Amino acid sequence: MAHQLVSQLKKDVQVHQFFLVRQVEERTTKDGKPFLALRLGDKSGVLEARVWNEVLKKCPGPFATGDYVAVQGRTESYQGELQIIVSFIDTVERLQARGRKLEGFDPALLHLATPHDREELWQELYSLAQGHLTPPLQGLVLGLLDKHREEILSAPGAQLYHHPYLGGLLEHTWSVARHAFQSLSIYPGLNAELVLAGAILHDLGKIKELAQPQAPERTPAGHLLGHIVLGWEMVREEARNQEFPHPDLLLQLEHIILSHHGALEFGSPVEPKTREAMLVYYLDEIDSKLKMMDQHLESAPPEGDFTGYHRVLKRVLYKGGERPPEESGGQD
Amino acid sequence: MAHQLVSQLKKDVQVHQFFLVRQVEERTTKDGKPFLALRLGDKSGVLEARVWNEVLKKCPGPFATGDYVAVQGRTESYQGELQIIVSFIDTVERLQARGRKLEGFDPALLHLATPHDREELWQELYSLAQGHLTPPLQGLVLGLLDKHREEILSAPGAQLYHHPYLGGLLEHTWSVARHAFQSLSIYPGLNAELVLAGAILHDLGKIKELAQPQAPERTPAGHLLGHIVLGWEMVREEARNQEFPHPDLLLQLEHIILSHHGALEFGSPVEPKTREAMLVYYLDEIDSKLKMMDQHLESAPPEGDFTGYHRVLKRVLYKGGERPPEESGGQD
Amino acid sequence: MAHQLVSQLKKDVQVHQFFLVRQVEERTTKDGKPFLALRLGDKSGVLEARVWNEVLKKCPGPFATGDYVAVQGRTESYQGELQIIVSFIDTVERLQARGRKLEGFDPALLHLATPHDREELWQELYSLAQGHLTPPLQGLVLGLLDKHREEILSAPGAQLYHHPYLGGLLEHTWSVARHAFQSLSIYPGLNAELVLAGAILHDLGKIKELAQPQAPERTPAGHLLGHIVLGWEMVREEARNQEFPHPDLLLQLEHIILSHHGALEFGSPVEPKTREAMLVYYLDEIDSKLKMMDQHLESAPPEGDFTGYHRVLKRVLYKGGERPPEESGGQD
Amino acid sequence: MAHQLVSQLKKDVQVHQFFLVRQVEERTTKDGKPFLALRLGDKSGVLEARVWNEVLKKCPGPFATGDYVAVQGRTESYQGELQIIVSFIDTVERLQARGRKLEGFDPALLHLATPHDREELWQELYSLAQGHLTPPLQGLVLGLLDKHREEILSAPGAQLYHHPYLGGLLEHTWSVARHAFQSLSIYPGLNAELVLAGAILHDLGKIKELAQPQAPERTPAGHLLGHIVLGWEMVREEARNQEFPHPDLLLQLEHIILSHHGALEFGSPVEPKTREAMLVYYLDEIDSKLKMMDQHLESAPPEGDFTGYHRVLKRVLYKGGERPPEESGGQD
Amino acid sequence: MAHQLVSQLKKDVQVHQFFLVRQVEERTTKDGKPFLALRLGDKSGVLEARVWNEVLKKCPGPFATGDYVAVQGRTESYQGELQIIVSFIDTVERLQARGRKLEGFDPALLHLATPHDREELWQELYSLAQGHLTPPLQGLVLGLLDKHREEILSAPGAQLYHHPYLGGLLEHTWSVARHAFQSLSIYPGLNAELVLAGAILHDLGKIKELAQPQAPERTPAGHLLGHIVLGWEMVREEARNQEFPHPDLLLQLEHIILSHHGALEFGSPVEPKTREAMLVYYLDEIDSKLKMMDQHLESAPPEGDFTGYHRVLKRVLYKGGERPPEESGGQD
Amino acid sequence: MAHQLVSQLKKDVQVHQFFLVRQVEERTTKDGKPFLALRLGDKSGVLEARVWNEVLKKCPGPFATGDYVAVQGRTESYQGELQIIVSFIDTVERLQARGRKLEGFDPALLHLATPHDREELWQELYSLAQGHLTPPLQGLVLGLLDKHREEILSAPGAQLYHHPYLGGLLEHTWSVARHAFQSLSIYPGLNAELVLAGAILHDLGKIKELAQPQAPERTPAGHLLGHIVLGWEMVREEARNQEFPHPDLLLQLEHIILSHHGALEFGSPVEPKTREAMLVYYLDEIDSKLKMMDQHLESAPPEGDFTGYHRVLKRVLYKGGERPPEESGGQD
Repeated sequence: MAHQLVSQLKKDVQVHQFFLVRQVEERTTKDGKPFLALRLGDKSGVLEARVWNEVLKKCPGPFATGDYVAVQGRTESYQGELQIIVSFIDTVERLQARGRKLEGFDPALLHLATPHDREELWQELYSLAQGHLTPPLQGLVLGLLDKHREEILSAPGAQLYHHPYLGGLLEHTWSVARHAFQSLSIYPGLNAELVLAGAILHDLGKIKELAQPQAPERTPAGHLLGHIVLGWEMVREEARNQEFPHPDLLLQLEHIILSHHGALEFGSPVEPKTREAMLVYYLDEIDSKLKMMDQHLESAPPEGDFTGYHRVLKRVLYKGGERPPEESGGQD
Repeated sequence: MAHQLVSQLKKDVQVHQFFLVRQVEERTTKDGKPFLALRLGDKSGVLEARVWNEVLKKCPGPFATGDYVAVQGRTESYQGELQIIVSFIDTVERLQARGRKLEGFDPALLHLATPHDREELWQELYSLAQGHLTPPLQGLVLGLLDKHREEILSAPGAQLYHHPYLGGLLEHTWSVARHAFQSLSIYPGLNAELVLAGAILHDLGKIKELAQPQAPERTPAGHLLGHIVLGWEMVREEARNQEFPHPDLLLQLEHIILSHHGALEFGSPVEPKTREAMLVYYLDEIDSKLKMMDQHLESAPPEGDFTGYHRVLKRVLYKGGERPPEESGGQD
Repeated sequence: MAHQLVSQLKKDVQVHQFFLVRQVEERTTKDGKPFLALRLGDKSGVLEARVWNEVLKKCPGPFATGDYVAVQGRTESYQGELQIIVSFIDTVERLQARGRKLEGFDPALLHLATPHDREELWQELYSLAQGHLTPPLQGLVLGLLDKHREEILSAPGAQLYHHPYLGGLLEHTWSVARHAFQSLSIYPGLNAELVLAGAILHDLGKIKELAQPQAPERTPAGHLLGHIVLGWEMVREEARNQEFPHPDLLLQLEHIILSHHGALEFGSPVEPKTREAMLVYYLDEIDSKLKMMDQHLESAPPEGDFTGYHRVLKRVLYKGGERPPEESGGQD
Repeated sequence: MAHQLVSQLKKDVQVHQFFLVRQVEERTTKDGKPFLALRLGDKSGVLEARVWNEVLKKCPGPFATGDYVAVQGRTESYQGELQIIVSFIDTVERLQARGRKLEGFDPALLHLATPHDREELWQELYSLAQGHLTPPLQGLVLGLLDKHREEILSAPGAQLYHHPYLGGLLEHTWSVARHAFQSLSIYPGLNAELVLAGAILHDLGKIKELAQPQAPERTPAGHLLGHIVLGWEMVREEARNQEFPHPDLLLQLEHIILSHHGALEFGSPVEPKTREAMLVYYLDEIDSKLKMMDQHLESAPPEGDFTGYHRVLKRVLYKGGERPPEESGGQD
Repeated sequence: MAHQLVSQLKKDVQVHQFFLVRQVEERTTKDGKPFLALRLGDKSGVLEARVWNEVLKKCPGPFATGDYVAVQGRTESYQGELQIIVSFIDTVERLQARGRKLEGFDPALLHLATPHDREELWQELYSLAQGHLTPPLQGLVLGLLDKHREEILSAPGAQLYHHPYLGGLLEHTWSVARHAFQSLSIYPGLNAELVLAGAILHDLGKIKELAQPQAPERTPAGHLLGHIVLGWEMVREEARNQEFPHPDLLLQLEHIILSHHGALEFGSPVEPKTREAMLVYYLDEIDSKLKMMDQHLESAPPEGDFTGYHRVLKRVLYKGGERPPEESGGQD
Repeated sequence: MAHQLVSQLKKDVQVHQFFLVRQVEERTTKDGKPFLALRLGDKSGVLEARVWNEVLKKCPGPFATGDYVAVQGRTESYQGELQIIVSFIDTVERLQARGRKLEGFDPALLHLATPHDREELWQELYSLAQGHLTPPLQGLVLGLLDKHREEILSAPGAQLYHHPYLGGLLEHTWSVARHAFQSLSIYPGLNAELVLAGAILHDLGKIKELAQPQAPERTPAGHLLGHIVLGWEMVREEARNQEFPHPDLLLQLEHIILSHHGALEFGSPVEPKTREAMLVYYLDEIDSKLKMMDQHLESAPPEGDFTGYHRVLKRVLYKGGERPPEESGGQD
């Protein structure tokens, strides 16, 4: 049975395939019977699963976060969300040990990650910096990219609401930086290098704020200091190491990073006081808000014209209605 | 004496040139002596002028908004703003009537207007719609542009804080529409035609909200109804006249216009519930905020690293400090 | 067994009567057994019902929104709200087909609707307009009432929090208009006709914003445009059709409609700038807030001096305590 | 020369009449010359006056708040507000002492006060309580009215923004109480006596919060405790003295008084939790807001369609435009 | 089996001990079977318990709030909170009646209360007033303490979020008053007696706002009037009875009590306008906020570096990480 | 003539003494005559002065910020604030050059500075750290104090609203640290060393944010980065240099510094998530708010019971009224 992507599962269908275990919880029914509440994922999303007592007796596990598992079961809708009622489950490891054939098992299908090729994103981002920055900003930006290549390639973009997956930070940064480049053609009066450097570096501190791209969590430093000041310090330190020759240019770049949330109440200790900082703030906003909307639209059930309520956007979204004839092949 | 642009006047310099009278007020000093408080402008800006009693006796006027006047005087700084202490003033009309030679008088220099060629902006905007929209949106947008060509060419962008001059609406719309076009290359998943049509039409209601591009004022309808609903109605009416064939597409376009202030508290009766509406909202924000900053930076006195406080942005702006050597030729 | 009104049901009583099905959901218990979660209503309210697996086997349905059903069961309290545990259920249609006698079945009892006679409300409202408006406002208001009679007679007043039922819009409008008439005796300086016309028309757009008075839902246009601008457009169009002769009077009436939510953050694109608009805003507020409180007090369980927390009012309400002797016969 | 009411004075007219001095300040011009800045009033309003040095030498005063003065001068507009440039001024007292004839001097014309007959307002208010309340609320309300008759007859309604004059509190209370009576016919489910008693007593604490009805000022207790709790205590004390027999009824009345500002941020220590309290809150709001608008419209200069910005309402007001023919005689 | 404190219970352990019943609810499972949802407490905290149908048949109760019960069962974690799955339960009363031995039953262990000795707190608080206040403030404060001794000894500090237990008000007052005394050494310019008296009396109204220290609930007067004005009135009345000789000093003390929530939106009808009032406001804030944090940290499960989200503080708290070697013996 | 402190000057008195020039502005009267607007200060405060044209002719200066000047003149009240009308002014330098005797000239009297002995404050602060901190926090704190001794001794506490003078930062830090020490006796559960170290270091970044203690101004880095992150970086760097051995302890200290404004909207990039951070936030608040109140009360004119409106506190302050007999000698 071919792998059905989590994002495309419907209710009331048979499931017979592999997943990555992302969370495990042992619970008890109101009758006092134990059952397992799992969160199972693949590269397209995550959903709940239940292993009731009867099944659990036959499939006792144990199961842990990070296990690959083979699962049989049936989807159903519970309080508006899909879940799998499991009729069989075991780990790939144990199945292999018992010599079972694992038809269709492909770990690459099971990891939630940016849908883009991360190396390609990296190359485009790097080229943008190489091709459109000049010293000393070029040296500063490339120095930071080189030094943190591995972390940037894997870090998530946020804990929960946008790009919360492997490569999410890279995808977000790539998008904001490319947008910045486009925007500069509209606003030639701005210092283009500052905007571009700011767009590339604005969220660098996320590599210290968030851990575990597969299931992003804030680190203690992320909670207690935050990515804004952590990223600012990284830029400042690199500049010191490179003996960056233009204090005012550096100050303006630092200001872009510290002010990129746009307002004190959103966590920036200073608000944008230059046009370059203002633009980077808005481009960051656009990318994260559009991604949130994308994710919410994708995960919405097909019924109805509107999605459910989005807790951060504080609104429902319109899914679009009938299409003009010439667009009948495709869709929004 | 060559015309010195208002935007480039310094304090304590002699002025001997022409202006457009933008406001006239008769006042009395604390000693009970009458004097004139004028606002004089040219294409680059506006400043205060004072005609004290002694001068007023020799130059009794009268003076009215819209008069071209020849002025001699001296600039000074009063509470952080420049003003002219007038030693001679008379209208061009009376001077001409008396046969005076009006060396250097050029009305084109005196009107506050977009620094761009309005016909060029119009052509670019129109081409964007013609080249990148298809029916039925193309017909709707071009229909509205054709119908309101003259008003769009002259309307201001806002009453006070951004683009408050002849052609301001056109300049703003042109900028937002071009930016939208650039942004669409970054966000291919959006309905490009909706974004572009929304960007072009979002502020159309301003032609009914604001009167007198030379000195923008809100009309009663502008005050009591506002440009958002006025523009929405224009789109809706044109669509009805054209028998626009796709109700849902039209609904989404109408939504972009009604929601383009981004939040209820900023005057939109609905908040953006589609990605297209969200993007147009942000692009409008970027253009108006960057323009506000431009205008504030341009009108700031040269002393100090920071401008004065901006009442809408609620902050001071950084004017930038020393520049890296390779940029010494230009910019900002 | 006589019909027991939903609003008067207590816990732990037997139920044996008819309901209207307002919502149906198929769910699965934690043991994996299917059950039905229904919402059953009559003219006085709505409550939850559960058809567990054992019963479901005998009463398999199917059941759909809008069905009349005969139900036997028992009420119980679940998390502070009443629900019926169903022991028998079938549709009136199938029971009739099988020749069953339907004692006590009366559809009029089962529809949630204004407790008032809708024709009477309509007559009073209409007379108010006829008797106290003069041309041209009279023509405009009566024209709109005539044109939309059927929709106004059935539309709900809001989706959820006040008057969410058949005839709710009419009841609310009737109440606000009558209150306006009373208030005008206190504030004779206001333009009485404007206030009265504004009170009658302020929520007219709800007939386009909300669908299905039995279970109000926002239409796409309701979500994406909102009743405020939809109602404004209806007034403006009718005025155009009638060639309304007084532009300023019309502008003030339009302003009342657009500003009747009182502030930008509540969804009005402009805030009240006339006394007439201010008064209509407050009268609308009073009626919707008092109705919310009424509904919350009515649906509160009898125990305790205070209701539960109201999510829109963001407070608990006092139910009143002991009464003075002379009031023992009645009231509140 | 007949008395010209302050509220009807135009700019650039001769003034030759009597005023009441409401404020006196000795100032110095920028040349170091002393002058007097006065505020002069009559029953219709207050305006600024200036006595420049030259005049001051001839009319040295002294002048104090509360003096009746004869004034000659000329009005002018200064920064959008009228002021009188005084050419002669002396007190009525000194003029009488010198045997001058005081043609047209009428103290009744000079006191800013409610335009209504205060005794009539009192009678209407008192009758409302007598006729529509029954014991024990009747006794409580009449007891408080009797006890504080003199203070209620003279107290202002607020320090500055609405009813800031002799009899203002009475006028406001009378208006709110009459409106409450009208509203009760629309909302028969409410406890009518509670609403009426609450409407009559809601602002009683103002007699302790504000001093000097001619020029209202907050007392220390007004600043440090506020009229809300001061009024509450008065009701509570009177009830204790009368041995009010129904604790719950009293509690609800007290709640109306404490919650009548409608929300914590407006100074009520509790928010309305009964329908009666909610209604009294809104009726108070309506009366104070409409009065603010009245006062702002009345004091606006005749030019233009809109008033200046109102600092409490945070908006400009529309003055109304052309009128329909049938209203040409009268209106608003 | 020794008593295990609720605050120290872990999941998956056997429980065999006594509790105080704090809440009882009869519910039905989704299969329609009845079960009991209890809240059981001891002096260290409260937790949920479930008596499923099978057990209920053997242990039918009845059970009521306030019963002492013997319980056997096992803890488990349900949605992140501990609960007991009960296998046996009966009341101490019935067990005693049947002659059972109640090993380890100690009522003192079962009541939630301040961890301090209440008499000691009282003595310290009283001594502070006696030793550091002089007449007339001393008389006023001691008079109020004497009169309300019993209520202060038992009242809770708040309904839910800080000190919600027997003696909580006393503990909070003692802490704020002692802190005030310390702070006065840093700010010698303040009126020390006012600060101290204000600190002692600021929350006195809580004895009327809250009932039942074991399970604090707001009284009707607490809901409709609030502790701030209730406490103010108590002070004012006592002062009247004592013929307090210094009206201004009293006014300032009253102001401290009314303004001690620091801002209108937090329920004070006036904001602090003296330094003494400002200090008392902050000291109250510090004590309640630190206590909230204490309670949240104590009730947090041991896993992870951060607590769950606190609904009033609107944040997670850091539990602290590794400790430096020299602190290994103790604390935090 | 003895030096009259600025803080004790009354209106309408003769002035004949020395000042420090803190600001100079050349202006023009409405008649076009030049005059000087000066701000003159001594150690107790600052006030405006005017040198009108006639005087300016005799006393042409020039005058610059930082000059010591001898002044004769007279105080007057202008718009509620004192100013000096100067009849003679010259610099001490020029007077000395001309051999004039400078009776009573004492620079120490003229510098606005903390009223405390700065060396004593420093010693107390240093001893607190030495005596109550242990390694490694002791080393970190003393290291930073040693390194920045000179800057801490001179830096102001804020630009304008509290401690805006030489030694202001030291005075504020000393006060907060001593208060912290006192508070720790009330809250023994907190990590005392963290609180103390946090209190001492919380505002360290001000030495980089503000320049010129005599007339504090924000530096570009102060504007674009802010003292919060600047101070955090200093601590972090010192810790790195000292190879601070306990990462978690350091993290908590860093958190105190970053969160000490208490909320995002007040400029902290993170909010307090530990009790230690919460306490330091409140102690900082108390000290700055009480100082603001002190300064406002001190600069208030003696008339009336209340001060003028304070723009940051957004309220008027009570100055206190009559005093009880036993306090007649002293206080407040």
